[in-house]
Amino acid sequence: MRDYESLLNYFNSILNKQTFLGKPGKLYEPIEYTVKLGGKRLRPVLCLAACEMYNGNIEEATQTAIALELFHNFTLIHDDIMDKAPIRRGQPTVYQKWDSNTAILSGDTTFAKAYEYISKIDKKHIPDVLPILTQVAIEVCEGQQFDLDFETQISVSESEYLEMIRLKTAVLLAASLKAGATIGEAPETDKENIYKFGEHIGMAFQLKDDLLDIFADEKKFGKKTGNDIVTNKKTYLLIKAFELASPEIRNRLSELFTPNVSFNKEEKIKEVKEIYKTLDIEQHTKNKMLEYQQKAMTALSSINIDGKNKQILINIADKLLDREK
Amino acid sequence: MRDYESLLNYFNSILNKQTFLGKPGKLYEPIEYTVKLGGKRLRPVLCLAACEMYNGNIEEATQTAIALELFHNFTLIHDDIMDKAPIRRGQPTVYQKWDSNTAILSGDTTFAKAYEYISKIDKKHIPDVLPILTQVAIEVCEGQQFDLDFETQISVSESEYLEMIRLKTAVLLAASLKAGATIGEAPETDKENIYKFGEHIGMAFQLKDDLLDIFADEKKFGKKTGNDIVTNKKTYLLIKAFELASPEIRNRLSELFTPNVSFNKEEKIKEVKEIYKTLDIEQHTKNKMLEYQQKAMTALSSINIDGKNKQILINIADKLLDREK
Repeated sequence: MRDYESLLNYFNSILNKQTFLGKPGKLYEPIEYTVKLGGKRLRPVLCLAACEMYNGNIEEATQTAIALELFHNFTLIHDDIMDKAPIRRGQPTVYQKWDSNTAILSGDTTFAKAYEYISKIDKKHIPDVLPILTQVAIEVCEGQQFDLDFETQISVSESEYLEMIRLKTAVLLAASLKAGATIGEAPETDKENIYKFGEHIGMAFQLKDDLLDIFADEKKFGKKTGNDIVTNKKTYLLIKAFELASPEIRNRLSELFTPNVSFNKEEKIKEVKEIYKTLDIEQHTKNKMLEYQQKAMTALSSINIDGKNKQILINIADKLLDREK
Repeated sequence: MRDYESLLNYFNSILNKQTFLGKPGKLYEPIEYTVKLGGKRLRPVLCLAACEMYNGNIEEATQTAIALELFHNFTLIHDDIMDKAPIRRGQPTVYQKWDSNTAILSGDTTFAKAYEYISKIDKKHIPDVLPILTQVAIEVCEGQQFDLDFETQISVSESEYLEMIRLKTAVLLAASLKAGATIGEAPETDKENIYKFGEHIGMAFQLKDDLLDIFADEKKFGKKTGNDIVTNKKTYLLIKAFELASPEIRNRLSELFTPNVSFNKEEKIKEVKEIYKTLDIEQHTKNKMLEYQQKAMTALSSINIDGKNKQILINIADKLLDREK
């Protein structure tokens, strides 16, 4: 079994041979720009790993892996318009570098190109892989809409938040694994269990993201912490703090996170971090992560393959959840 | 063989049984709103007609017909953001009624739902139908980008314009026919010829659209003529007028169509219509339409089925090209 790095290198070598350029240039340049910017390539790596677990022939899963990465990039291009995000992977977003119309249309084309790659896989797998991508596409849109709704929603419950990140983030990791396992011709029950494994790891992955934004070592993180505080983002940490805080602290949090009211950035970050520390929010979040990690391991233990073939998934999960950026 | 009205009624009865509502409401309400607003339902009707030409069982093509209508609606939702269009089918556009972010995300979901319907068709047809939808999706995006590029491009040639409308409009009619013929298990050469028929009819259809915008009988048209003149749209009529005009008239046209320079609407419409009349632009456009109609008939004559089974396509083509709105 290959490891994450080896699958990543394989995937990048294949991806770099693809060109997403074409005519009209203004439509295709943003696609090439976004896809070639890099990133963790987590979804394609999961897809390749799951395929390899079953038949060892990752070449067969390559088109699907590219489709998943394209789909993920499509969501980033459109989300960045909606979130007015200026920077992605250290570079200007498409919406910022070109304009909003270009980002809409290039995003649409990236989505269509994802399906083009699906249409190129072995015909016998298309009817099984297509609904996996399609269901997850719909769910990711639902997740993004819930996230947008939360911006103006006064209070968001823990369960609403968890459902949002399940849809927005976790199911795509789950679908990537399931698609790879499908190409590898895994049995149906294994496909469901590998999906569940991915879904739970995806939940832990997003909670880790929320944690890093506040508590990361900035040198290793490569950027400043506290961005979610500045942008008033409703994260697990904030929701948990609202839940556990005394009435006075809760009022203060409400004040600090009132939309369109601005505070001194540094002071706001400092004050909120202090509140999180007092309420032991880091530990609460880590406990939730651990809960999902354990659920993931239970799903993995139900998969009917040799233990050594599962090691790649355990390694990827460890890597994702121990990361410092 | 059924006629257009009968296929349309069948399709609407099926479509009205579908619900596109779901959670979160803000994501799904715009989809239900757009799809149920109506329209010509041209693409699904073409799909059903082509299927019936071969095996007579249009029920099998229903999911594909819905997918094509959803895809078309997705393009309208996004195009209306890009074109800042306030009204569509007599009602506020999604972008106007909700907001731009909602239109982006609901549009994306509509696109994904189109693929969901494709994933529900008989598995044996999925590998052949999927690439038809995917190729046309990419081409329609290319067409829209060319159209956006033309807004700031000083001069657009006739051939550039024709390629743009081929991509933006014609190929979707062609793909609708080909997808229906695929479900009907038409032979490969017939599928290519029915595609060509649709492509040529699609070209004539768009030229008819350009003509109606200027020369329609307003009572029958249901709205004012001259909108393309007011919005500085580069149409076949305008491009042909630039080509045929004397240097003086050409300069005047350039003046009249300078971006961001505003003229009295009524006077501008009147003056441009006069120029079109002097240059016999209506006849030139009709000649071009006729050229495409003839090409369409040649493609149709190459199809190896009984003449009476082709009648439905001839009737639809006549209906589209003789319409007054």
